[in-house]
Amino acid sequence: MARRRVQLPPVKIGVLGLGTVGCGTLNVLARNRDEIARRAGRNIEVVAASARDLDKQRPIDTQGIRLTTDPFSVVDDPSIEIVVELIGGTDPARELVMRALDNGKDVVTANKALIALHGNEVFARAQAQGLTVAFEAAVAGGIPVIKTLREALAGNAVEWLAGIINGTCNYMLTAMSERSADFAEVLAEAQALGYAEADPSFDIDGIDAAHKLTILASIAFGIPLQFDKVHVEGIRNITLDDVRYAEALGYRIKHLGFAKRAAAGIELRVHPTLVPRRVMLAHVNGVMNGILIRGDAVGPMLLSGAGAGADPTASSVVADIVDVVRALTVDPNNRVPHLAFRADSLSEAPILPMADVESAYYLRLSAVDQPGVLADITRILADLRISIEAIRQPEAADGDATVSIIILTHRVGEAAMNAAVERIARLSGIGANITRIRMEEFA
Amino acid sequence: MARRRVQLPPVKIGVLGLGTVGCGTLNVLARNRDEIARRAGRNIEVVAASARDLDKQRPIDTQGIRLTTDPFSVVDDPSIEIVVELIGGTDPARELVMRALDNGKDVVTANKALIALHGNEVFARAQAQGLTVAFEAAVAGGIPVIKTLREALAGNAVEWLAGIINGTCNYMLTAMSERSADFAEVLAEAQALGYAEADPSFDIDGIDAAHKLTILASIAFGIPLQFDKVHVEGIRNITLDDVRYAEALGYRIKHLGFAKRAAAGIELRVHPTLVPRRVMLAHVNGVMNGILIRGDAVGPMLLSGAGAGADPTASSVVADIVDVVRALTVDPNNRVPHLAFRADSLSEAPILPMADVESAYYLRLSAVDQPGVLADITRILADLRISIEAIRQPEAADGDATVSIIILTHRVGEAAMNAAVERIARLSGIGANITRIRMEEFA
Repeated sequence: MARRRVQLPPVKIGVLGLGTVGCGTLNVLARNRDEIARRAGRNIEVVAASARDLDKQRPIDTQGIRLTTDPFSVVDDPSIEIVVELIGGTDPARELVMRALDNGKDVVTANKALIALHGNEVFARAQAQGLTVAFEAAVAGGIPVIKTLREALAGNAVEWLAGIINGTCNYMLTAMSERSADFAEVLAEAQALGYAEADPSFDIDGIDAAHKLTILASIAFGIPLQFDKVHVEGIRNITLDDVRYAEALGYRIKHLGFAKRAAAGIELRVHPTLVPRRVMLAHVNGVMNGILIRGDAVGPMLLSGAGAGADPTASSVVADIVDVVRALTVDPNNRVPHLAFRADSLSEAPILPMADVESAYYLRLSAVDQPGVLADITRILADLRISIEAIRQPEAADGDATVSIIILTHRVGEAAMNAAVERIARLSGIGANITRIRMEEFA
Repeated sequence: MARRRVQLPPVKIGVLGLGTVGCGTLNVLARNRDEIARRAGRNIEVVAASARDLDKQRPIDTQGIRLTTDPFSVVDDPSIEIVVELIGGTDPARELVMRALDNGKDVVTANKALIALHGNEVFARAQAQGLTVAFEAAVAGGIPVIKTLREALAGNAVEWLAGIINGTCNYMLTAMSERSADFAEVLAEAQALGYAEADPSFDIDGIDAAHKLTILASIAFGIPLQFDKVHVEGIRNITLDDVRYAEALGYRIKHLGFAKRAAAGIELRVHPTLVPRRVMLAHVNGVMNGILIRGDAVGPMLLSGAGAGADPTASSVVADIVDVVRALTVDPNNRVPHLAFRADSLSEAPILPMADVESAYYLRLSAVDQPGVLADITRILADLRISIEAIRQPEAADGDATVSIIILTHRVGEAAMNAAVERIARLSGIGANITRIRMEEFA
């Protein structure tokens, strides 16, 4: 059907890692070989691949590919122009990527930990070598959020971004909401389905989302990668009651990465958040990811799609390979900068300490069902100038001596909220565990 | 705060047209001058601009810009490297763009009619000259759907795309749905708000959406621009009753551009569509645009945001300028192809005639309230092998001798549906106007 006339020689690539994403990448490159060549103007040829266990059965065709257990032999292979790092983790990925750069090869990676923790160093090396390290697949799988922030929004001052960027958390919170299942049940289910690891901490305690937020914030605001400054909370404390109360109030609980440019500095935080149901982000469900970005020119923009999986992640890996292939003839000084802004013009804007961050809040307390408790609580909030948007006191179950009290506050500084929670917890008749979840309006 | 060290000389651009988008572009370039230079590595300087009436008050600072009523003097200005065409329409825009290319200048345009109707010729000229014509702003305003399809999805075989790509239609359908207002009322309102022209036909009869769909389909599937092959229907026949009945059945009516790669050819169609409420596209409301794309690797992906307006459109124009600035040092043969696929490898896949297109249907008939009518209708559908998903017969208003009958069908070929509607209309007791709206599941 197509009159193909691809004249440039094929680009030779080496793939490190034949796990889910590695196999997906090989399959997508093979399946769409013709479409990709029609776009890129060249064929892309995998000439070598490394894996820990070569005997493992994999759903791929490895004909014509040199297979090895030694990834260093791939990055040292002089015939290879682009190294695709799909091992994950920082060790030995970091060493392999640095060596590939030293060997004059461009790199494509899906490794969020590598970029979030060692990106500053990796990009400096690439820059010094006039090479590119592309990392679209490191954040939100198939969603082109890196390209959108770096290129499509080049004319904008980005004001804030909010992302559902961990599919495990979103699967679990969605399941709790849609099927009234409790946390332990949906965690077991996510583990059975392979959405959560045996040790699920990396996902459900927010580390994975914090890696991704670190990267998004850097390219949105032109700041260096600063993972250690992200405030991180996971979803372990979210109960089915919280999910239900939030819904009755018109909200869904989502685990968000949130970055915002405030006057005093930049907010970087990962935590469960009440999102109003009228906002489309609240409708990004299951394992899907979604990122809402507000630029001063474009206004609010939402990208949503698959945040993980073999083929969606491969979609981003292959797009990066094609971009790198195109950039081979570009003056290195004229390429899209790794972190969107040129390395010599990154901003030193401070990251705001959490005590200075403002947010509205959902509070859930359990209290002895007796007069005067609510008056004590509202007095404490008033003293700290925390204004209340709504109070709900769902009826206690029969025979239950304690009741739940739900309070929605207007925006308040973190320090004042900390003080309020501490004082309320000391009241007699109040249970020790006070649940606090931030709320954002995205207006 | 930022250590700026921008060393390349500024890029000099000329702007044709100082309407809404022209003024927005000047404002965004001025307001975000520093952020843009930190990304692009160079300042972008508007040195000349043309407008029909120079005395008109505009919300822009034109200091340092040569103003002229003669757009040809801008495209002939030897100091200008990039011409930004924001006049709209095909005449004189086409001549201006061709002359800019002949003069060796790259072009950025927001002109969907120009691209949809004359893009094949324009891109051929650009290609021959080793130049770029960038047109992100021509489709869906601030949403980077061109970049996403051309670059981010380079590894995918795109299966289909469905877009809410006309803000006027979406505003009107949303208003009908949310406020139970009728068509005439919301049209008058859209005109008062400036969302619809005095002659609204270009928007509400689907021409504007068809221009945009032509462009999206071309870059999704690697086919030439073929505006004349798009099946176009507008929203004039949608009544408040249809909106309500659709909602009762779990759907929202949206005006969509739909392009799909089927085995026999490519479907290109613009028409009102019942979209299931569980699909996020159904929640893209008001003047917002949204495009749902399904790639074989990435799966379904949604982009949504502002589809028009000064600043959002300027966001795309400026992103294109930055891309073109970067591409100045690229071997022209290695740039992103105008239509995503290289000009020598466009596909000759046929566009499917509408008679061969399959779709599920919503039908609304008015019938005399007497026994046997429904039996006659279902007999006709059965004879044509059209299977029925649901029938609803809302109660007639008091004193009303006719009733509405709503029928949802399963997927059926267009030819069979045409025959069915023709036969049903001939039944005695059936009103002449039978409303038919296509339905898609996007599963």
